[in-house]
Amino acid sequence: MTKAIVLTSGGLDSTTCLAIARDAGHEIYALSFDYGQRHALELAMAKRQAEMMGAKKHVIAKIDLREFGGSALTSDINVPKNSTNNQELIPITYVPARNTIFLSFALGWAEVVDADAIYIGVSSVDYSGYPDCRPEFIQAFVDLAKLATKGGVEGSWNLRIETPLIALSKADTVLAGHKLGVDYAQTWSCYDPTPAGKPCGACDSCVLRAKGFAEAGLRDPLLS
Amino acid sequence: MTKAIVLTSGGLDSTTCLAIARDAGHEIYALSFDYGQRHALELAMAKRQAEMMGAKKHVIAKIDLREFGGSALTSDINVPKNSTNNQELIPITYVPARNTIFLSFALGWAEVVDADAIYIGVSSVDYSGYPDCRPEFIQAFVDLAKLATKGGVEGSWNLRIETPLIALSKADTVLAGHKLGVDYAQTWSCYDPTPAGKPCGACDSCVLRAKGFAEAGLRDPLLS
Repeated sequence: MTKAIVLTSGGLDSTTCLAIARDAGHEIYALSFDYGQRHALELAMAKRQAEMMGAKKHVIAKIDLREFGGSALTSDINVPKNSTNNQELIPITYVPARNTIFLSFALGWAEVVDADAIYIGVSSVDYSGYPDCRPEFIQAFVDLAKLATKGGVEGSWNLRIETPLIALSKADTVLAGHKLGVDYAQTWSCYDPTPAGKPCGACDSCVLRAKGFAEAGLRDPLLS
Repeated sequence: MTKAIVLTSGGLDSTTCLAIARDAGHEIYALSFDYGQRHALELAMAKRQAEMMGAKKHVIAKIDLREFGGSALTSDINVPKNSTNNQELIPITYVPARNTIFLSFALGWAEVVDADAIYIGVSSVDYSGYPDCRPEFIQAFVDLAKLATKGGVEGSWNLRIETPLIALSKADTVLAGHKLGVDYAQTWSCYDPTPAGKPCGACDSCVLRAKGFAEAGLRDPLLS
């Protein structure tokens, strides 16, 4: 059985990605990050999903990006609501170097357990305009991984980075997960939950999620 | 005044690197990692050096690589002593993806403060054979950084990664630091200190340090 590190945030995309990795027959090493995000509800969902999907191990790596500041997701800057989501602009919810940091940790773990693949649920279709969600970024990371690691340098290790959602719209992602039995009631997307712990319905992430379910012709079970 | 992130471990190389960055006229943002290393004495030295060199800020980012295991520096595997330091083999003190992770954090901070450069004290001459200390690895990270960041993608940011020690022998590094007034009594290199807090004198890092001072014709003030 081949091993895969799966980056799981408890959100819609990464949970779908987890289901796809499991469906591909990998033994799952789920990796989440407690990075000082405001929406820590995500992590409870990530833990539940890793269990439900039979992950061999789930690590929540605690890293503090708040010391660097610079993003509405980790600092006191307000999360924008009902933005026009213009993909030409990179929004304030962008966390500097986040996916680079996440993939670096995944790379370290992959090397230790000798995993064949790292799964990351980035999409360059219905996304928020973050630079580190694009195929060229992923390819640059693959190139780096080859030079960064013992196995890569010795030629004994051909790590793949799997991005099964990269060309999928949010609706296609929802449909893919639905087919694989993902329980979307146990996922979390909102950047800025209400004090009662409900999705705000207006941040970029809520808007994209709603669009995805609507276009997929499905009801979001989280909202029921 | 241009800004530079300087990766500082409190060791001989990174402290020399700190002095070089300061000498180049940068405002210094010093970045260290508490990554579960056995030799945590390093961090006290890093803090002292950042202060002594007038760093604008010093962040010690706490990350736990022990959860992944796989290295004598972070787990219960014994640190090898008096090894032949054959550079063909990558030793057990290698921490998986360590420099990739460190540079990723540096990249995030560099983006937030709009730094011009990241300084990292890697050397591909008198080194321990780690893959992530070589020029081709550094170049791959520069390529990644361009694609990973808002400023890189928008073309407004040309981050440099400075590796002033990459072609220096340990002796040349000691001489460079000596010239800049580095207080090497306030640095730490040993991977496996004695219970009394003295350098073991036999691990790879102690052996390389001793060789450096000997070839530079200088006395190591840490050992007095």
